[in-house]
Amino acid sequence: MRKWVLFSAALIFFPAFLFAQSKTLCGFSEADAKKESTLEEKFDGYLSAQNIQQYIKDLSARPHHVGSPGGKAVADYIYSKFKTWGFDVQVESFYVLFPTPKQRVLEMTAPVKYRALLKEMPLKEDGTSGQVQEQIPTYNCWSPDGDVSGELVFVNYGVPDDYETLRRMGIDVKGKIVLAKYGHSWRGIKPKVAQEHGAIACIIYSDPREDGYFQGDTYPHGPFRNEYGVQRGSVMDMPIYPGDPLTPGIGSTKDAKRLDRKDAGNLLKIPVLPISYHDAEPLLRALEGPVAPPEWRGALPFTYHIGPGKTTVHLKLEFDWQIRELRDIIAKMPGSDYPDEWVIRGNHHDAWVNGASDPLSGQSAMLEEARAVGELVKTGWKPRRTLVYCAWDGEEPALMGSTEWVEYHAQELQEKAVAYINSDGNGRGFFSAEGSHALEPFINEVARDVIDPETGISVLERLRAKELVSPGMSVKARKELLEKKNLPIGALGSGSDYSPFIQHIGIPSLNLGFGGEDDGGDYHSIYDSYDNFARFKDPKFEYGVALSKTAGRATLRLANADILPFDFKSLYQTIKKYSEELITISDQMRENTALENQLISEGKYKYATDPTKIILPPPTRQEVPFLNFSNLQNSLTILEKTSGSLSDALSKAKSSGSDVEEINRMLYRAEQKLLSENGLPLRPWYRHTIYAPGLYTGYGVKTLPGIREAIEQRNWKEAQQQIEIAANAISKFTANLQTLVLIIK
Amino acid sequence: MRKWVLFSAALIFFPAFLFAQSKTLCGFSEADAKKESTLEEKFDGYLSAQNIQQYIKDLSARPHHVGSPGGKAVADYIYSKFKTWGFDVQVESFYVLFPTPKQRVLEMTAPVKYRALLKEMPLKEDGTSGQVQEQIPTYNCWSPDGDVSGELVFVNYGVPDDYETLRRMGIDVKGKIVLAKYGHSWRGIKPKVAQEHGAIACIIYSDPREDGYFQGDTYPHGPFRNEYGVQRGSVMDMPIYPGDPLTPGIGSTKDAKRLDRKDAGNLLKIPVLPISYHDAEPLLRALEGPVAPPEWRGALPFTYHIGPGKTTVHLKLEFDWQIRELRDIIAKMPGSDYPDEWVIRGNHHDAWVNGASDPLSGQSAMLEEARAVGELVKTGWKPRRTLVYCAWDGEEPALMGSTEWVEYHAQELQEKAVAYINSDGNGRGFFSAEGSHALEPFINEVARDVIDPETGISVLERLRAKELVSPGMSVKARKELLEKKNLPIGALGSGSDYSPFIQHIGIPSLNLGFGGEDDGGDYHSIYDSYDNFARFKDPKFEYGVALSKTAGRATLRLANADILPFDFKSLYQTIKKYSEELITISDQMRENTALENQLISEGKYKYATDPTKIILPPPTRQEVPFLNFSNLQNSLTILEKTSGSLSDALSKAKSSGSDVEEINRMLYRAEQKLLSENGLPLRPWYRHTIYAPGLYTGYGVKTLPGIREAIEQRNWKEAQQQIEIAANAISKFTANLQTLVLIIK
Repeated sequence: MRKWVLFSAALIFFPAFLFAQSKTLCGFSEADAKKESTLEEKFDGYLSAQNIQQYIKDLSARPHHVGSPGGKAVADYIYSKFKTWGFDVQVESFYVLFPTPKQRVLEMTAPVKYRALLKEMPLKEDGTSGQVQEQIPTYNCWSPDGDVSGELVFVNYGVPDDYETLRRMGIDVKGKIVLAKYGHSWRGIKPKVAQEHGAIACIIYSDPREDGYFQGDTYPHGPFRNEYGVQRGSVMDMPIYPGDPLTPGIGSTKDAKRLDRKDAGNLLKIPVLPISYHDAEPLLRALEGPVAPPEWRGALPFTYHIGPGKTTVHLKLEFDWQIRELRDIIAKMPGSDYPDEWVIRGNHHDAWVNGASDPLSGQSAMLEEARAVGELVKTGWKPRRTLVYCAWDGEEPALMGSTEWVEYHAQELQEKAVAYINSDGNGRGFFSAEGSHALEPFINEVARDVIDPETGISVLERLRAKELVSPGMSVKARKELLEKKNLPIGALGSGSDYSPFIQHIGIPSLNLGFGGEDDGGDYHSIYDSYDNFARFKDPKFEYGVALSKTAGRATLRLANADILPFDFKSLYQTIKKYSEELITISDQMRENTALENQLISEGKYKYATDPTKIILPPPTRQEVPFLNFSNLQNSLTILEKTSGSLSDALSKAKSSGSDVEEINRMLYRAEQKLLSENGLPLRPWYRHTIYAPGLYTGYGVKTLPGIREAIEQRNWKEAQQQIEIAANAISKFTANLQTLVLIIK
Repeated sequence: MRKWVLFSAALIFFPAFLFAQSKTLCGFSEADAKKESTLEEKFDGYLSAQNIQQYIKDLSARPHHVGSPGGKAVADYIYSKFKTWGFDVQVESFYVLFPTPKQRVLEMTAPVKYRALLKEMPLKEDGTSGQVQEQIPTYNCWSPDGDVSGELVFVNYGVPDDYETLRRMGIDVKGKIVLAKYGHSWRGIKPKVAQEHGAIACIIYSDPREDGYFQGDTYPHGPFRNEYGVQRGSVMDMPIYPGDPLTPGIGSTKDAKRLDRKDAGNLLKIPVLPISYHDAEPLLRALEGPVAPPEWRGALPFTYHIGPGKTTVHLKLEFDWQIRELRDIIAKMPGSDYPDEWVIRGNHHDAWVNGASDPLSGQSAMLEEARAVGELVKTGWKPRRTLVYCAWDGEEPALMGSTEWVEYHAQELQEKAVAYINSDGNGRGFFSAEGSHALEPFINEVARDVIDPETGISVLERLRAKELVSPGMSVKARKELLEKKNLPIGALGSGSDYSPFIQHIGIPSLNLGFGGEDDGGDYHSIYDSYDNFARFKDPKFEYGVALSKTAGRATLRLANADILPFDFKSLYQTIKKYSEELITISDQMRENTALENQLISEGKYKYATDPTKIILPPPTRQEVPFLNFSNLQNSLTILEKTSGSLSDALSKAKSSGSDVEEINRMLYRAEQKLLSENGLPLRPWYRHTIYAPGLYTGYGVKTLPGIREAIEQRNWKEAQQQIEIAANAISKFTANLQTLVLIIK
């Protein structure tokens, strides 16, 4: 506790005995907190970096994408480990569409011929990089089959703003093949936006600026992407829905009713292929047309042009569209007191290739947590609530293992799931937590109690230190950060297996991990290997242990808490902040639109432009109306009071007795009230009114997404409707908390 | 006048007759304004783009650096032109030190051998690029002779902050050779700072990121610097003093008393050489040691490392240290009414090589102005004040022609000089004006009356349009800019021939030009040629005419004004803004220093750092005291009142009569009162208390420089002293204006 004294002037004169007391733990009585701390010490004692190292080594020994022999071997390995450790284990299989490459041809046909290699090179320094037979070729999963030829156009990151820039330069991609670079959006957005603009194919490459020699020495000399490295990855339109594209909303069991592939609303119509910068260089170098704007230019050694012109390419892709078996490993350790309350912990096991970092670094930390739980159980201890460890298959193509499981068990989960704690790739560096804001103080407390292996301070204080010294932060913000007890956690978008839990069925979720000192360019390539990981990501495997400690503590505390540590005041403050942001954004848009329209109509853009170049003025836009935010604001005012009363009531509630079960049940199910019945516009699968991945960011979160995206798209009618929907959800949520306050009293 | 109605809501309801009146001109009675407008129309009529094209072609036909045969030919050409046009012309010669290369060797000696080419390649597309015999080799003028070998260290731009970054990375350049890239400071700062840190030599290269293929297609395909292009240029420590290094403060006539070269306080001790990116690439590629921070990295296709290590280089330089003759061409057209009031117009004529853009584009526009004046004089018209056209020699090495002339004629100039109007390189694009803020409304009025050749609106309104649509400007700032009558002009640092006029002897000065659509990489290379200029800089030579019109109008109006158009309210507002900036900066430094010291002492920097890398925390710094700005603030309060009274008085003053001469004399000599007797700390040559080039920016201006630089250097005692010095200068300046008010009344 000493550290807090330094940070908070307000605490300096507190009586000394306060600091002499043992650590408080949200949701535990003083006595139970002591017991829990003792348990956690024991738990820590079981954790071994060497074990984590061994799991990573074993599991990354072969490529193990969905449906591969290596994939089955990994599932079997995990199954048998859980079994050995005393868990009640099941393999839950689902049957999902998963295309793999049969033919891939990319060639430049003019002004010079070039046939792309589409191949990553084995390296003598990397023991598994030569497993060519089992490696899935470089491709973007869910690209349709296609055979197209056309002029090439460079579209920067390929996000909507880039097409606006092209429009102003008089360039139309209709009927053309676009070349986009990775970065600044989830990859699936790039072909989606290309398709919306009439392109006939999309090539995505890794520019050395973002992902190659500009960042640092390349593999095997250093960790960054070498010229042959390719980022595989899914291009399903997951912001519409993830999982098996043929079974939206339901588990894809063997006999599930399936859509016809052409009717799947999240599959692209145009072919897509990822390439290395070795393959991109001749194409980009050949482009003519206007010079790309400064912020579009990468690190290849020539002037970036946009095209179109004499540069034409031919792309031919063919895939094997099979239904394949997914193997989720579900391992339970039944709770002694509340067996029907489930604390769920998950990490995927499938990889694009060997996947030492993604996902095995996280998977192995989870396995080591589970082993330590098994050791505790051997001593006679039992978790009060049921622990459910999940090793998901099929995350890489579309979060399929988790999504199908959540869809299949939705009703049971909405009854029983206390929370879902996710992890994925992990490495050396700083703690990161994102998730349900009602768990913000809880996860801060967990981070307070885990020591960073490199510095000896808590992972929470190390993260605070990093934020405090990060450039570009105002003095005011830094002072606030020094004083604040809890660090704010981010909101969840998409990109890993928490998505179906929180966004589809409203289960409180957290995503945890370490990173920031493990940079590299192995992502989704054959170079994401044990050899790479052990050199560059977490050589001592000590951040694997740190993740085991952190996620393990979170899991154990949720399993053992007297009163579940949900804090709806934190949630209120967060939603309030989002709501204020939206009001500010719409005010700024109004002022900005009016001014821009004036500047455009007065010809300022025309006058400011070099007349020897084509740069059209931006379009004038409809003036921004005032939206009525009052229902949202009023609903938040009531939530503020209610969350305050609830907090007071909970602090006085007894930690045992017949009411406790009902109180906890209402606490962990509360977030479900924030779901909207019909989901978000155009994507009913996403039902959370506070968090969703962005339709045009893909992984990146949009908070109060219905309202925010309608404002961003200048759809004022929809924005107003979504304000009412969010306000209703918040009111429903608050009413439920009011009931809970009455029960406690 | 119509345009103003659109911009200023306050004007909308003004009576219509106001707009029906003829154009007002500061300093002219209504009748005289009409005459002046008629004169300017006639003047415009004489100007010819074809003439400007011919001057540029003729003058750039051969290399013509200081002391070269080509240089003499250029001076003779200009002399004979002025003569032909009816001016009273003189060649004023000065005798200055000017080193030229005798031997240049740069070689990498390990880990591999590489001998630098140090040579720009002739191109068949560029007619003068093959004049190898007359081209001065690529070098940095004022580098001492030297023969050194040592380890190489990459120092980014080589400015003080970069050495702080190196220190924090545990890298010391003592006894090493540094490699810096061009950009982010005037070039002379780089070897100066390297020397201060103990380096034994400095190599400067043009990175393709700032000056090469990253920016656009390279010469001759496009205008940007190709791999062989080298930026020559001076590395004299001009922020100490410019001009002949052996005769600071006095004209370097044949028999002037000269310093010994070793005693010249503005010459470097370590050798310096500029190189191309072709020559830099092998050196940079060979470097080991830590990876350079992201903002240090350029556009060469590999990972930038800092060194030091196995990479060693050998640099041998020898120069011919001769005294050479400078030829300033001074052409006068005597004034009819006030022959002893001089309006001075200047542009240099010497170049590093052929110099079509720098300086001939500006020189040629000035010549065409002078020719048109000659034509007007042939019609019987005479300027009321004397016009003095100056074509300077020796600007490139050290502003030598202008500085020696100003030093030699200082007393006469302080008596007679109404203002100095400078230009230099010029090209297609936007109008730019910098200078004495008492001339801000005047030069805005000039810009209002010149039509931009590409858009047909005034060059003032085109500039406003550009600023209005430039990204990153707040809505508030843009709205203010829409409403504002005058656009603010920048302050003068250094980098062209205005420096001795304004900074050494307080002559009101302006620097005018067009640019922004003439980007390229020809600067100080053999590719700054007529062929390059005519393709990429101003193909129709119409911006040459626009400069003739703008600078010509400024010159003619100052020559003919009844009451000289100085506006000290504008000057007051500008100084007031600077003063507020300094108060804010010192407050922010105080707050920031206190917080940083806290973060450092609490170990936050240490905790935030990857322990596998060397990144030391920043040093703690002395806490920032409160400075006493009151004398400065009080002096500004009195200036505000006085400049207001003066403005009122002048608006009622008669435009002729015996007082007018005295009034004008006091107006144009007023700025001299802002000089301080002892000049700036460590550099007494710079005497202006409001404007100076920065000691560590070189070209970049520092306003209220004595105070600002003391604050930046955290020298609080000196900052306080400089506040008093500036306050005294402002008070003296104000007292003089008060006297003037009494005279007018």
